[in-house]
Amino acid sequence: MTAYGLLVFDDVEELDLVGPWEVFTASSMIRGGADTAVLVAERPDPIRCGKGMRVLADHTLDDHPPLDVLLVPGGRGTREIEVRNPVVTDWIARTAEHTFWVVSVCTGAFLLHAAGPARGRRVATHWRHEDDLEAQGEVTVVRDARYVVDGNVLTSQGVSAGIDSALWLVGRLHGREHARAVRRYLQYEPAPPYLADEPHTT
Amino acid sequence: MTAYGLLVFDDVEELDLVGPWEVFTASSMIRGGADTAVLVAERPDPIRCGKGMRVLADHTLDDHPPLDVLLVPGGRGTREIEVRNPVVTDWIARTAEHTFWVVSVCTGAFLLHAAGPARGRRVATHWRHEDDLEAQGEVTVVRDARYVVDGNVLTSQGVSAGIDSALWLVGRLHGREHARAVRRYLQYEPAPPYLADEPHTT
Repeated sequence: MTAYGLLVFDDVEELDLVGPWEVFTASSMIRGGADTAVLVAERPDPIRCGKGMRVLADHTLDDHPPLDVLLVPGGRGTREIEVRNPVVTDWIARTAEHTFWVVSVCTGAFLLHAAGPARGRRVATHWRHEDDLEAQGEVTVVRDARYVVDGNVLTSQGVSAGIDSALWLVGRLHGREHARAVRRYLQYEPAPPYLADEPHTT
Repeated sequence: MTAYGLLVFDDVEELDLVGPWEVFTASSMIRGGADTAVLVAERPDPIRCGKGMRVLADHTLDDHPPLDVLLVPGGRGTREIEVRNPVVTDWIARTAEHTFWVVSVCTGAFLLHAAGPARGRRVATHWRHEDDLEAQGEVTVVRDARYVVDGNVLTSQGVSAGIDSALWLVGRLHGREHARAVRRYLQYEPAPPYLADEPHTT
């Protein structure tokens, strides 16, 4: 049984959050409902994400079940607000002491840095914010990897990269054959368009 | 200005919904906030998605702004409930008459079929449900394409495929250079893990 807890806050980036959520919960489904995944927020009010979607958290910071995996997504809310919110950074620091894995997506790495778990580590973040993160000191930003594993800290590049890192994690936890089954369920066989420069046909 | 409307319902699959949502809203951000994206539901209560995330819709079926793009995500709720819910299928049929594009992700194709827009079309759906959809009749299921464009109907394969089809659509609407900028913002350079069979190192 793996208990996943995903931190949410105003101006969290939607796909940073929902990419890994989908991977973790699909993993649990394939494992017969063995695992749990919950959203944890500072307050019980609806969260307004960075692009306007409103989601409801399942628990507050001071009342949630024990977690095996703590995931911190990115978004404008991390860099501009939450890195200076000691209620959130203290909670991350305390919670990370007891989880097997500490995970961030995109600029969630700034929160892991402010709270402590990313200090002295090799980490990934969104390409646009790599210089900013390195300027914080006590961290090595890896610029050429989709995601980075350093000890029990798993960080990934921007937004969509959380899908790849979460798939890696469920494979690390429950086997790579299982991760492949999750990938098949998600039909994750990416085909980004417009990679070629070809004549317009319409 | 493009007005995106995404239908939500209980047991909608989270990533089916949020992949395109992220693409559409990032596209709008890059275009200086030119566009709008809203979630539309039958009732104003919170939606419980298929894997347990709760989201709030912005509008109800009988009170929403005009839409240019209608997107219907998939999930257990489509096949088991909403295809037999005339309130939803009638709304899709009426709304699709006035939108420029009608889009589905995953098993959302079943709803487009039940409502009419997918009848007589070539469509894509989740690999596990291709036979079921074809058995409905009056539809050609394309099994070897990530997404399918037939007239103004854009359908995609399972769950994660909505990211690719939504990127195609914003390129079709606003130019492929723009779609590339959206892809760059999302750092959508997928790297699925466990594609190789190699020795375990841990």
